[in-house]
Amino acid sequence: MTTSTIQAPTLWDTDRRNKAERIDAVSSLVNGKFIPTEKITEALELLIQPGDRVALEGNNQKQADFLSRSLAKVNPERIHDLHMLFPSISRPEHLDLFEDGIASKVDFAFSGQQSARTAQLVEDGTMQVGAIHTYLELYSRMFLDLAPRVSLVAAVSADKDGNLFTGPNTEDTPTISEATAYRSGIVIAQVNEIVDSLPRVDIPGSWVDFVVEADKPFEVEALFTRDPRQLTDVHVLLAMLTIRGVYEKHQVTSLNHGVGLDTAAIELLLPTYAERYGLKGKICTHWALNPHPNLIPAIETGWVQRISAFGGEVGMSNYVAARPDIFTTGPDGSLRSNRMAAQSAGLYATDMFVGSTLQIDPYGNSSTVTAGRLAGFGGAPNLGSDPRGRRHSSPAWLDMAQGEGQLGIQRGQKLVVQIAETFNAGSDPKFVEQLDAVAVGKKAGMEIAPVMIYGDDVTHLVSEEGVAYLYKAQSLEERRMAVSAISGVSPLGGIANADDIAELRRNGLVGFPEDIGVNPSEASRTLLAAHSMESLVEWSGGLYEPPAKFKSR
Amino acid sequence: MTTSTIQAPTLWDTDRRNKAERIDAVSSLVNGKFIPTEKITEALELLIQPGDRVALEGNNQKQADFLSRSLAKVNPERIHDLHMLFPSISRPEHLDLFEDGIASKVDFAFSGQQSARTAQLVEDGTMQVGAIHTYLELYSRMFLDLAPRVSLVAAVSADKDGNLFTGPNTEDTPTISEATAYRSGIVIAQVNEIVDSLPRVDIPGSWVDFVVEADKPFEVEALFTRDPRQLTDVHVLLAMLTIRGVYEKHQVTSLNHGVGLDTAAIELLLPTYAERYGLKGKICTHWALNPHPNLIPAIETGWVQRISAFGGEVGMSNYVAARPDIFTTGPDGSLRSNRMAAQSAGLYATDMFVGSTLQIDPYGNSSTVTAGRLAGFGGAPNLGSDPRGRRHSSPAWLDMAQGEGQLGIQRGQKLVVQIAETFNAGSDPKFVEQLDAVAVGKKAGMEIAPVMIYGDDVTHLVSEEGVAYLYKAQSLEERRMAVSAISGVSPLGGIANADDIAELRRNGLVGFPEDIGVNPSEASRTLLAAHSMESLVEWSGGLYEPPAKFKSR
Repeated sequence: MTTSTIQAPTLWDTDRRNKAERIDAVSSLVNGKFIPTEKITEALELLIQPGDRVALEGNNQKQADFLSRSLAKVNPERIHDLHMLFPSISRPEHLDLFEDGIASKVDFAFSGQQSARTAQLVEDGTMQVGAIHTYLELYSRMFLDLAPRVSLVAAVSADKDGNLFTGPNTEDTPTISEATAYRSGIVIAQVNEIVDSLPRVDIPGSWVDFVVEADKPFEVEALFTRDPRQLTDVHVLLAMLTIRGVYEKHQVTSLNHGVGLDTAAIELLLPTYAERYGLKGKICTHWALNPHPNLIPAIETGWVQRISAFGGEVGMSNYVAARPDIFTTGPDGSLRSNRMAAQSAGLYATDMFVGSTLQIDPYGNSSTVTAGRLAGFGGAPNLGSDPRGRRHSSPAWLDMAQGEGQLGIQRGQKLVVQIAETFNAGSDPKFVEQLDAVAVGKKAGMEIAPVMIYGDDVTHLVSEEGVAYLYKAQSLEERRMAVSAISGVSPLGGIANADDIAELRRNGLVGFPEDIGVNPSEASRTLLAAHSMESLVEWSGGLYEPPAKFKSR
Repeated sequence: MTTSTIQAPTLWDTDRRNKAERIDAVSSLVNGKFIPTEKITEALELLIQPGDRVALEGNNQKQADFLSRSLAKVNPERIHDLHMLFPSISRPEHLDLFEDGIASKVDFAFSGQQSARTAQLVEDGTMQVGAIHTYLELYSRMFLDLAPRVSLVAAVSADKDGNLFTGPNTEDTPTISEATAYRSGIVIAQVNEIVDSLPRVDIPGSWVDFVVEADKPFEVEALFTRDPRQLTDVHVLLAMLTIRGVYEKHQVTSLNHGVGLDTAAIELLLPTYAERYGLKGKICTHWALNPHPNLIPAIETGWVQRISAFGGEVGMSNYVAARPDIFTTGPDGSLRSNRMAAQSAGLYATDMFVGSTLQIDPYGNSSTVTAGRLAGFGGAPNLGSDPRGRRHSSPAWLDMAQGEGQLGIQRGQKLVVQIAETFNAGSDPKFVEQLDAVAVGKKAGMEIAPVMIYGDDVTHLVSEEGVAYLYKAQSLEERRMAVSAISGVSPLGGIANADDIAELRRNGLVGFPEDIGVNPSEASRTLLAAHSMESLVEWSGGLYEPPAKFKSR
């Protein structure tokens, strides 16, 4: 075959030429890389085209809110049918884009506060969902089949060359910018200020096409702050069971915690209850998580060696800057929190994920998607799954080895722990016959139900009744019995009878408090290392500065 | 609890102060960030301390060979017991470090050409192996428990501020630099030249502590080039079976190919054999792989929409620069090949991994670790595993759905395809009773055998006898029978008898060529779109420039 058989050459630089045309179109509006603040909507109408795939931060914490508010003001007759990529649907105008006909399709990872309206827009056909992802999955697709044509991102400051400084909320910005810049897309960054010299460069100016000074500093949410006052004796009991029945039993050194109250209680029991069993240095030394204020007492008492953070946390900047041996900080002292790197660390470099859930079914499947709410997944599916490509071992990981022992082939497994009270005061039971997610998925026309953590990935389930060691279950039926055994008076409680439960305990599939060495009568808030936000501030030596809404409680 | 109970404050900036001391120590040798070429070994003796964890590129393709040669010259009485992190053990001096007493421990991902000597050094106790990883796993640990104290990296050029331009071989450099810089580690980059202005910035200067101009340009290997002349009719048959029996059957659009000859044949059959079945645009549109020269005919005939590359390939730079719609390139035209991003894309954004293997056991476990060789894994375990955190669906992925259908909970699975001839002319059989990896692992004192791809992750096995659809196997025994059915006259061939095989074919667990619509008598090299390196150059319109060693063949 010779070159004579090659088809007539197509054009191979469509995207690049199209980008050049768009940049030409705004030349009279801009000053080099800089878009005047008041011209932003006009510029967006020239830089974005109908049908574009547009990534918008819409981040877990940090919001490119000046850009999202400006995008919501474009003329829908000019700009429509956008395919939005939101790591997080966080703000009302993210959804206004769909109601106003500017956008029609979305791929996202998390919706949180907007989950009810998101579900409604999907149901009435205003918004088409490509898929709900876990963060790392969405970023990965940005590098292949979902490359953004335009990205709207947020940073703290820019210099004259368009280099960006993100400060502690690095989050998704480097990833989205890279995925866009190297596919001839257009990267537009809002910044709080333009300065002569940056403390450090988080994103090189050669990746950034335009910078605009925002009308006000970007919004950032304190998503990872839990007031210790909210913790009850039940949270303490769950934490005690988890510490002794899981962390101590398997000697887990590296882990991720979700943002639930149960895990907050664990963090506050390390310097007190766990200390009593001589566990310092033996468990919980390496963490993938945001700078949780509730971890301050454990850090101060020498429990924590390293943290890889997915983002920052409001009020924690001075504390983090003063603890560079623990956190990933730059020479300027502030956190670098590259979410892609931290999610990878959470996937491949930690032995355990511990999360709370809203609903769990008899087979251990769980989801935070409940009736009328399309909440998304965030990082949980990534962090709460066994990375089957993992090839290094650790004692905790090897402890899970069940596998196919034949031929000398065996491997361990990540510990995936779900904590769920069997009853929530004043709310629906968590242990249910079927997840609401199944019906929600059907209603939204999704090909698979939006399950957050699959039962076959869960190794441990903890309720105030005890611990189910699901990794030991040899069959679906055995898994179902073990779930039932610790589901108390919930709808699932009756599946296993007294004889079943006795056998499950004998075989180590279920551990009740007395089997684990936990005395429930000891479960009291007094065991917590801090009982209030003020106490956390004290522990930090005054470095932690809680947001106003927490101070006033 | 009050702050009075907090222990005496420990020092929280140990690493940062230690770094400052080291940098002070070289102040008389260096000119700001620049180390004079001839002073490098002296500088390394001051910047590195005994017991340090040192990351060295030691990359898949690009080698920081000036730095590795210089490190091998340090005085072992001053610098010893280093813990080396090598993405790839590639060069002789990487191992000299251990023989000479400079380093004692290693964590790595791939060894390739050094696999025999690596095995020997482990066996005689000269080198202690932490673990063999897949790339993404090793990077992930660098962000948590294996943060490098010092990194020795390579780039094409640096400017006066230490900003780095990597050119097409971006590879691991941004990742290693970031993991080091934000843990108060020391980043030292060798560059081919120092220039006034970079084509683009791949790594910000604020992440780089020192730059040294190398004595000669860094070494880079053409690892992904396969001369079409090496392809036999058997490779063509395997490729035909895989295309029709897997790609077409499941309509796979996104995938990764390994570097084997089998997959090279597939690439060269797309514009010819696969074209015949009207598959263009229906399969193989999105790829995670290096710029394989054998993919040029498929690209030129419009098969390929997007490629996310793990690295560059020698001789492909001009071709890649001329195809920006396909590859991730910068405004300068050259590839940006961030391996961490591409490995994530390969994990989460592709539906299929296809690789060749050296040995496969009756349960489908496979490895390239064979007697006397500790070859490592590279990207295969990551790419060749089901990402259980994945939550978006695609037709191919859903086609694998077996799972637990109960309660409306189901999910798909990544296609993991292994291609293995039942016989290799002049070599040992690939289908074996037990992997050599088991014995090698025991000998090296490893906690788990160095299996590259686990049998329970493999969905399809292809030999010249046919295709085994292992994802349909309901038991280990059924999987074993299916493997046997296509293992020909190998030692495993006798496990399944004629009746077993007939039943496996009826149930769709095994497809022979006639079941799949493949005529083996058609399997001929003449079907390949290119038969020589010269033909690939022609296909590329003269843009591809093969390395000398391939030209001379």
